[in-house]
Amino acid sequence: MTKFEITILGCGSAMPTTLHHPPSQLIDMNEKLFMIDCGEGTQLQMRKYKARMSKLHSLFISHLHGDHIFGLPGLISTLSLLGRTADLNIYAHKEIDFLLNPLLTYLGSHLSFKINLFPLNPHSEEKLFENKMMRVTSFPLKHRIDTNAFLFEQKQSPRHIKREMIDFYHVPVKQINEIKNGADYLCSDGNLILNEHLTTPGKPSRKYAYCSDTAYSPEIITYIKNVDLLYHEATFAESERNRAEETFHSTAQQAAEIALAAGVKKLMIGHFSSRYNETESLLKEAMAVFPNTELAVEGKIVSL
Amino acid sequence: MTKFEITILGCGSAMPTTLHHPPSQLIDMNEKLFMIDCGEGTQLQMRKYKARMSKLHSLFISHLHGDHIFGLPGLISTLSLLGRTADLNIYAHKEIDFLLNPLLTYLGSHLSFKINLFPLNPHSEEKLFENKMMRVTSFPLKHRIDTNAFLFEQKQSPRHIKREMIDFYHVPVKQINEIKNGADYLCSDGNLILNEHLTTPGKPSRKYAYCSDTAYSPEIITYIKNVDLLYHEATFAESERNRAEETFHSTAQQAAEIALAAGVKKLMIGHFSSRYNETESLLKEAMAVFPNTELAVEGKIVSL
Repeated sequence: MTKFEITILGCGSAMPTTLHHPPSQLIDMNEKLFMIDCGEGTQLQMRKYKARMSKLHSLFISHLHGDHIFGLPGLISTLSLLGRTADLNIYAHKEIDFLLNPLLTYLGSHLSFKINLFPLNPHSEEKLFENKMMRVTSFPLKHRIDTNAFLFEQKQSPRHIKREMIDFYHVPVKQINEIKNGADYLCSDGNLILNEHLTTPGKPSRKYAYCSDTAYSPEIITYIKNVDLLYHEATFAESERNRAEETFHSTAQQAAEIALAAGVKKLMIGHFSSRYNETESLLKEAMAVFPNTELAVEGKIVSL
Repeated sequence: MTKFEITILGCGSAMPTTLHHPPSQLIDMNEKLFMIDCGEGTQLQMRKYKARMSKLHSLFISHLHGDHIFGLPGLISTLSLLGRTADLNIYAHKEIDFLLNPLLTYLGSHLSFKINLFPLNPHSEEKLFENKMMRVTSFPLKHRIDTNAFLFEQKQSPRHIKREMIDFYHVPVKQINEIKNGADYLCSDGNLILNEHLTTPGKPSRKYAYCSDTAYSPEIITYIKNVDLLYHEATFAESERNRAEETFHSTAQQAAEIALAAGVKKLMIGHFSSRYNETESLLKEAMAVFPNTELAVEGKIVSL
């Protein structure tokens, strides 16, 4: 199966602690790295977990709170020191200019590559990136400032040819691609050979949804139905539900309720408040609602 | 003795590694913390080494290369989240505006304290800060961009009164301060009592010099004569002397030559290039010239 791996570089929140780093994740899909969020120290975490800087394809920034962006200047500078030449695409709210413009002026001719900023739409679902293998879409969350979720999808692969049947029916090479994509085959004698006799199913699509930071928001369920893995913030325990509402964050129980309603296969909770010295109690709260839940932790790798 | 303690938070250079963090140090003088340089992740290092954010008095930034400043946005944001109200004085080259101004606009009314920027003079020696107990001065180094060194001095304390002699000569209370500061005492019978009969010496002054980043620069010797501890960068080994010259950095041997010529009591070398997996060889080179040398390492605390 093509690689589809999520590495947690940081799963803390605004206030850094000795337990958790500010938010950042890497999606490794077929040897390309897609980064979500870039809190302070993200490049140091990449070093620690031996993620290769040269594989970094593009960056997706959920929102412009400091704990999600203050690692950008250091990361961009280091990529330049390493001599990167490929464009770096950054998907973020357009106000990130406040950080990027002074940095670009500061680095000036020292910057070895071009940065392309693709502004996120904070109001509706939008396709951000697509190639033959994958698709990334974005949709709005409910936070104090414009915040977007990201859905990473590895597409269903083409159906697999049954070589012996292709030979048996003398299917011409030029029709193979259509058949891989589901077409039936009309023989020269007029017989129609159904696709299912000629192929076996390809790999199903796999989906990862990243939803942080957000208040409890059932509106997102429609976008994350049946995903293989949902990362949902769980900044607080249920005992701090009022605080969660005030700050537009979620409790662990609320994250689990969203997972349950969306019928996801697995839930991972993160973005833990600095007040928690341990997160097992958050896990317990979530598992009471949605048993297939796990805790994010720095260095964790999940393969889909 | 009044506390005078240096904590190494980071002693790497431009490229982060798994061995060293970007440059930052804390000077703890009498329960106030003075920070020198603030590379990415400095606030995380403060957490790790249990340095209290509330004790942070002011910041001294040697120059504006990213590895010395990219920790500022995160640190300033966190101080604000913690509700700091005291002004924060930052001593740095005036071009740091490129980073501070957008940050101040971004934080806006969320910033709970005032930041005062004191521009460094990149061309000559200058007193930056002084109170009864200490003095901080700055002088130019020789780097690719304007770069300043910092000299932290804990002043000599007043002489100690010999209580029994003060009583014996019936010295009036109002003259005690003058005598602590070295004055003799004229008795009512016309006898002059020399100060050395009335007092014992106070604590001598102690000095710490921070010299990073810099090419080999004998011009600095005059400023660092006889300091108790000299931190001098040693980015490269002698085998990379050409590279050191090209990039306006020093070799370990050059750092030791400066220490020897300045008659310092102890040398600490740091700002190691990312190419070195071990720094013992740099230590060996320096010790061949100046035996009382030690290596900087994250978490090290030196008491003067």
